Amino acid sequence: MENIKIGHHISGKFNNELEDMRNKVLTMGGLVEQQIKRAVTAFSTADLEMAEQVIKLDDQVDTLEIAIDHECMQILALRQPAAFDLRLLVTAIKIVNELERVGDLAERIAKMAIQLSETGSNNRHEHYFELVHMADLVENMLHGALNVFARMNVEDVTLIMDMDENVDREYASIIRQLITRMMEDQRNITRMLDVLWVARALERIGDRACNICEHLVYMVKGEDVRHLTQAELKMPKKQNLSN
Amino acid sequence: MENIKIGHHISGKFNNELEDMRNKVLTMGGLVEQQIKRAVTAFSTADLEMAEQVIKLDDQVDTLEIAIDHECMQILALRQPAAFDLRLLVTAIKIVNELERVGDLAERIAKMAIQLSETGSNNRHEHYFELVHMADLVENMLHGALNVFARMNVEDVTLIMDMDENVDREYASIIRQLITRMMEDQRNITRMLDVLWVARALERIGDRACNICEHLVYMVKGEDVRHLTQAELKMPKKQNLSN
Repeated sequence: MENIKIGHHISGKFNNELEDMRNKVLTMGGLVEQQIKRAVTAFSTADLEMAEQVIKLDDQVDTLEIAIDHECMQILALRQPAAFDLRLLVTAIKIVNELERVGDLAERIAKMAIQLSETGSNNRHEHYFELVHMADLVENMLHGALNVFARMNVEDVTLIMDMDENVDREYASIIRQLITRMMEDQRNITRMLDVLWVARALERIGDRACNICEHLVYMVKGEDVRHLTQAELKMPKKQNLSN
Repeated sequence: MENIKIGHHISGKFNNELEDMRNKVLTMGGLVEQQIKRAVTAFSTADLEMAEQVIKLDDQVDTLEIAIDHECMQILALRQPAAFDLRLLVTAIKIVNELERVGDLAERIAKMAIQLSETGSNNRHEHYFELVHMADLVENMLHGALNVFARMNVEDVTLIMDMDENVDREYASIIRQLITRMMEDQRNITRMLDVLWVARALERIGDRACNICEHLVYMVKGEDVRHLTQAELKMPKKQNLSN
């Protein structure tokens, strides 16, 4: 699979613009990764200070989203790119949108941690290990997707998308456990619904990492792989819908 | 507020391309509106046939998403538009992405209806009225957002975004009722979690209608209103972050 490099333009300034935009996307991705890790720790350990950090990080993430979007639109208008450059810019706009939504999910987990802490339920949370494990999985997925974007090499995409099956399995297992706990004692219900919500948010983060992968395949190969099944994705001859 | 019209280009073919793309977005929006209405009815009345229709509609929605995306990319590459036309095309790409996710949520509600029906729980569902009412609200929001796109007039945007507060209130009220029902009888828990999931999906559809509104304000006015509060949105002088 070809490894596409930025830096082939006659205009050095154009190269720099693309490189700068790409670095900003990676910075934004790094911030969102931090948000996920800290949000789940804050929720699981009722760490108020860490929850506040996640919310502060979200302001930076939002500012970066608008800045990158703006930069991409400026380059589209002024450089009028075609082929790979055009796909790169439109993909970057889509990726920052996904990243911003991941940041929002992390922020909501952090806000839930604060709420729990305020209502006095600030003891170490049950289901800590399951949630942290699930968070590790989706963080790895996001990290992998950002690596694909950094290296412009989509070889690892199916590996990352396979990980989503594990995430879905973990999620289903947590839900089963929570339902059992709720049935055992209805005083657990409100608390268990909070845990359920966090698990659901993590599952959605995994989905968004998959969305990013799909956008990246389109960017690098010019093939639209959305709405294909995992099995179709792995077939050597892909259906070319969009180039 | 100015009412922008497509059709001012010297090239009649360019006008037609934009008009065609815009019509496709509106067609896709219409399909997604149908999906929401039918999915909630299918879930609430355990109507297997209607649930199947929602799933079939989703194939059409997915096909349209890819077609519109492709069309926008082609126009970006060949016409190299600037200013409003550039914003229109990038916004269309963002809107079809939001619409496709709404379609997915409707599809998942339909699949849940089928699952319930298969497990024999095919009696008329409790909380029918609350869910149908919430579905009406989010459908109206989406319909309003698509009207804004059709007329290119963002005057109604704050009205639509205000409706989201009602949706959030309805959602909170449903959650409270569900928790009470779960506490009364733990045999209700699994069933109530399904209703909770549908309510949550509807709440997210409302959020996506708001996202579409934000994209539209940017398209028409060139102002980025993401991450502003509702109050800031209503201020006559908006912070111009992205133009």
